Amino acid sequence: MLLEQIKQPEDLKRLSMAELELLAEEIRQFLIEKLSVTGGHLAPNLGVVELTIALHTLFNSPEDKFIFDVGHQAYVHKILTGRMDKFDTLRKYKGLCGFVKRSESVHDVWEAGHSSTSLSAAMGMSIARDLKGENYKVVAIIGDGAMTGGMALEAMNHIGHEKKNLMVILNDNEMSIAPNVGAIHNYLSKIRSDRHYLKAKEEVETLLKKIPAIGETLAKTAEKLKDSLKYLVVSGVWFEELGFTYMGPVDGHNLPLLMDTLKQAEKVNGPVLVHVVTIKGKGYTPAEKDSHTWHGVGHYKIESGQVLKAVGPPMYTEVFGNTLIELAEQDPRIVAVTPAMPSGSGLLKFASHFPNRMIDVGIAEQHGATMCAGMASEGMKPIFAVYSTFLQRAYDQVVHDICRPNLNVTFAIDRAGFVGPDGETHQGVYDIAFLRTLPNMVLMMPKDEKELRDMMKTANDYDDGPIAYRYPRINGTGVKIDEAPKSIAIGTWEVIKEGDRAAVLAVGPMVQVAEEAAEQLSKEGIQLRVVNARFIKPLDEAYLLQLANEQIPLITMEEGSIQGGFGSAVLEFFAERGISALTIRNLGIADYFVEHGSVKEQRQEVGLTAQHLVAEVLALTPRKRQRA
Amino acid sequence: MLLEQIKQPEDLKRLSMAELELLAEEIRQFLIEKLSVTGGHLAPNLGVVELTIALHTLFNSPEDKFIFDVGHQAYVHKILTGRMDKFDTLRKYKGLCGFVKRSESVHDVWEAGHSSTSLSAAMGMSIARDLKGENYKVVAIIGDGAMTGGMALEAMNHIGHEKKNLMVILNDNEMSIAPNVGAIHNYLSKIRSDRHYLKAKEEVETLLKKIPAIGETLAKTAEKLKDSLKYLVVSGVWFEELGFTYMGPVDGHNLPLLMDTLKQAEKVNGPVLVHVVTIKGKGYTPAEKDSHTWHGVGHYKIESGQVLKAVGPPMYTEVFGNTLIELAEQDPRIVAVTPAMPSGSGLLKFASHFPNRMIDVGIAEQHGATMCAGMASEGMKPIFAVYSTFLQRAYDQVVHDICRPNLNVTFAIDRAGFVGPDGETHQGVYDIAFLRTLPNMVLMMPKDEKELRDMMKTANDYDDGPIAYRYPRINGTGVKIDEAPKSIAIGTWEVIKEGDRAAVLAVGPMVQVAEEAAEQLSKEGIQLRVVNARFIKPLDEAYLLQLANEQIPLITMEEGSIQGGFGSAVLEFFAERGISALTIRNLGIADYFVEHGSVKEQRQEVGLTAQHLVAEVLALTPRKRQRA
Repeated sequence: MLLEQIKQPEDLKRLSMAELELLAEEIRQFLIEKLSVTGGHLAPNLGVVELTIALHTLFNSPEDKFIFDVGHQAYVHKILTGRMDKFDTLRKYKGLCGFVKRSESVHDVWEAGHSSTSLSAAMGMSIARDLKGENYKVVAIIGDGAMTGGMALEAMNHIGHEKKNLMVILNDNEMSIAPNVGAIHNYLSKIRSDRHYLKAKEEVETLLKKIPAIGETLAKTAEKLKDSLKYLVVSGVWFEELGFTYMGPVDGHNLPLLMDTLKQAEKVNGPVLVHVVTIKGKGYTPAEKDSHTWHGVGHYKIESGQVLKAVGPPMYTEVFGNTLIELAEQDPRIVAVTPAMPSGSGLLKFASHFPNRMIDVGIAEQHGATMCAGMASEGMKPIFAVYSTFLQRAYDQVVHDICRPNLNVTFAIDRAGFVGPDGETHQGVYDIAFLRTLPNMVLMMPKDEKELRDMMKTANDYDDGPIAYRYPRINGTGVKIDEAPKSIAIGTWEVIKEGDRAAVLAVGPMVQVAEEAAEQLSKEGIQLRVVNARFIKPLDEAYLLQLANEQIPLITMEEGSIQGGFGSAVLEFFAERGISALTIRNLGIADYFVEHGSVKEQRQEVGLTAQHLVAEVLALTPRKRQRA
Repeated sequence: MLLEQIKQPEDLKRLSMAELELLAEEIRQFLIEKLSVTGGHLAPNLGVVELTIALHTLFNSPEDKFIFDVGHQAYVHKILTGRMDKFDTLRKYKGLCGFVKRSESVHDVWEAGHSSTSLSAAMGMSIARDLKGENYKVVAIIGDGAMTGGMALEAMNHIGHEKKNLMVILNDNEMSIAPNVGAIHNYLSKIRSDRHYLKAKEEVETLLKKIPAIGETLAKTAEKLKDSLKYLVVSGVWFEELGFTYMGPVDGHNLPLLMDTLKQAEKVNGPVLVHVVTIKGKGYTPAEKDSHTWHGVGHYKIESGQVLKAVGPPMYTEVFGNTLIELAEQDPRIVAVTPAMPSGSGLLKFASHFPNRMIDVGIAEQHGATMCAGMASEGMKPIFAVYSTFLQRAYDQVVHDICRPNLNVTFAIDRAGFVGPDGETHQGVYDIAFLRTLPNMVLMMPKDEKELRDMMKTANDYDDGPIAYRYPRINGTGVKIDEAPKSIAIGTWEVIKEGDRAAVLAVGPMVQVAEEAAEQLSKEGIQLRVVNARFIKPLDEAYLLQLANEQIPLITMEEGSIQGGFGSAVLEFFAERGISALTIRNLGIADYFVEHGSVKEQRQEVGLTAQHLVAEVLALTPRKRQRA
């Protein structure tokens, strides 16, 4: 196999075009096989095989900088830069990262996970290069979906103005994770779908030469001329007006054409945008047919293309989607808003039920959040369904446009807590810290999927300002969920199990962990109280005062940052009331970024397991006795 | 005066065009006079007098929704909606807000303070309108600077796609706060500066009819034709490709023309963008000549146009700007980045010293922050100079692009703490809470301008990841600052005054407040220890442990949110170490949004004064005794 001879990008430069094309096929087979076992972002990577080969053949990484937007489409890059033999560990604990990772290779110059950062990074590197008087190339590879994220557009506006040498490769696959939304997308489709594009240019020239001198027909000709000129104008003028030299569209699977185009692009002075059209899932029929399912996928059978799903209780996401339909049937004010994650957020069924009440804004968390505020100001009940990690993008909008004017926006925060194999860029571990500090915000997390339904009802009944429920990227507990959801009184907790040795105030899935610990301890005759701290804000103040009266040691437990988290809110509560002398221990995630692995491994690493909790309880208790 | 007869927008509809034009002049005089005493955003409001009159005359507020982006240019709107007699209290405590404010009037349907939110709000209101089956008009008024903020571009992309009826008025004044940056700005200039625009369109038609049938000259003609067609194409095609109907440019001070254009725009089906060209400061010569100085201004003398500045020690901002020049002369890695605030951030002098090392990215906090990360990844030492409140826009970039990969980006956070008359939208009171929870971040605040210089040196010497210093929007203390700045050991505090009754851990300007309190208490024989908690993260752990050993009551004091703030970090520190039984009181800003007024009034309102601290100390002490 050719593939085995490629240990570094230089090895590509010795290959003929025919060999490079063969290599592309080998890489496809490699990816299809490896990912059938590990899972991963198959379709996006199958789409960029030729593109990545072309880049590494023509340019010189790491001197030249390749900046992969998001970074989930860098598997081919990893293969070509000496990491082929690590693919069995892809996205596993301590294994190969599913995204670009600086610590893995000198060829990984920029790392991400969130979209739309590559153009800003490229601009920063170009500025640095010019100030240092160096002259390497900076190439950003960005998808058509990511291109419409606000920060990418900010960067385009700046890059086009400053005119630095910088290459943007627009990887246009008509689809990022969901079908793309937006006027820019429509514009790209127009360019892409016009097969007569090149021909039209020639036609104009010919036409101009053939204009007859007959008065009457001239007007008609002029009309035709204008129509033809549209083609001349349409392709890329939008980018040209932004200060870029536009090249394309070029077939991203035609390696010789692609390499020719990139060679031309390299000679352009100032920013150049190469519009490359690729097919997601290229070369693997099931993925080509349904690039949506195959964007990020688990195990699958290669021949049949059957995706193997773990069996178990429904995911929280699914329960959310179904329950929202129930609520929306009752309440016409409900509108669901997603920033490009209709499937990931469990909203596809909702969209088919209520096509006018489900709005996909594209990768645009800022716009999505503030649009919800606009809807709420006119009496609607918008639900902003968003992953915890992506809500970070709308932090200012939450503060300034929603909490400050106290508008009735509901946040359905998915992927709260550890997210498993996506790792550190996607962990939903800061939203408690950044939301609970905001005035007017109500923040909840359910102990199981039934309680999620109740919280959704609670949010729907609540009309006093913003309210959020957060839920994890795991299966539910399997509890029965056939009852109609019921509202929960704001700021009330639930005692799951009584006990006198210590009380654990557990958030969300930590309730189950605490129950396990309590069971183990009870075998040793130690009774641990388990409290479902379902409201992170406001706290259950009456119950906290009761706990203070009891002088029982407290352990807070959350799958989130200890710094500024729920536990911290409990500490503040007692400090504010001058209640000291309580033993309080905060369990959560210490002050570092937790990498990829399974959720179980991540919890194990930071100490959020029943075993750890048992140890904490045993360690706490003697200290309390000592003092007493 | 006509002006006195206008109590509500309907009153405008009875006036003739000549009267409306007279009214415009009266409003200008009113603004120039009132603001000479109160200060405020004079130039932006002088620019939109005719535009606001036209809107309120043609449309029906509040049924029709006017959404003023930022909202600092809504003074005329306030005058026309019955708030003329409140202008003496503009931006004063409990007085008229300097921005749009829902609680002030039914005509204020959207409130802001940060830029670029209006299009998202307008889209949300349009969706709500259509779902409710209503048919009012939604009009967003947005400046050319705000238009290039990422969320506005996200909104444009979505609006153009969805094709709802919605009007965007692009108030193009060639200058928002600073000269505008970016390719879109260049594009607008091109449209605006082409006086032959309308003529060119006709020329093309004529030309087409005149094309001679002579072979040789045809090619030449074709060239000329194409050149002419460019004009046809240039005006607005960028917006048209985004799905908008583009109208303009129209002179924003020609009331009849403006009203005609708006009437036409009203008939357009789908989103329409009206490009209105205005002059900032229109009608007041000093402001027209220097719209920069007159964007937001304090007291001034009307005749001379002399702006009256308070005398006092230099503002922190100024010390920052000067010190950065000193550092940059020594260290060629330093590059300053500002999101459209070169003057507000004290960087104008720096820019003239180092034109290549000062980058204004426009209103683009997200791009600016990540661009810094790109520069840092290539060995530069970027300083992102940003107001605390605007850094909220880049929260995700700070987490994901800077803290996570641990890049050497320095944050110079201006306007940290209360900002006075700009009020609740601009308070810099959340950055401690949202930055201290992020791994790898170092966060400092100086007690005076000399220490700011030392912190800047500290940040410059620090190469282990992101580091931030925050400073307030007030004058310095007047301390001598002629010494060369010195590095401070990371995570060390400074005891300013010894004392045994209680220790106040004060952040930034609270050190001075604590010193005042200590002085008062010492007259009563009570010794209050004053500690300059100059590192918010990391904490001075050794000193905290010493305090715990002493069992001295602690008071933390910060001009920031109590929730998740510095005081909360101190509580977490002791909880983590199992140290309870300490008396700790956290002073800061309680869980609500503090409105406009002077910084002094704002501190008074939340209890951050020497008087309050004295009371706290006196209240604390007996309780401690009781327990002991």
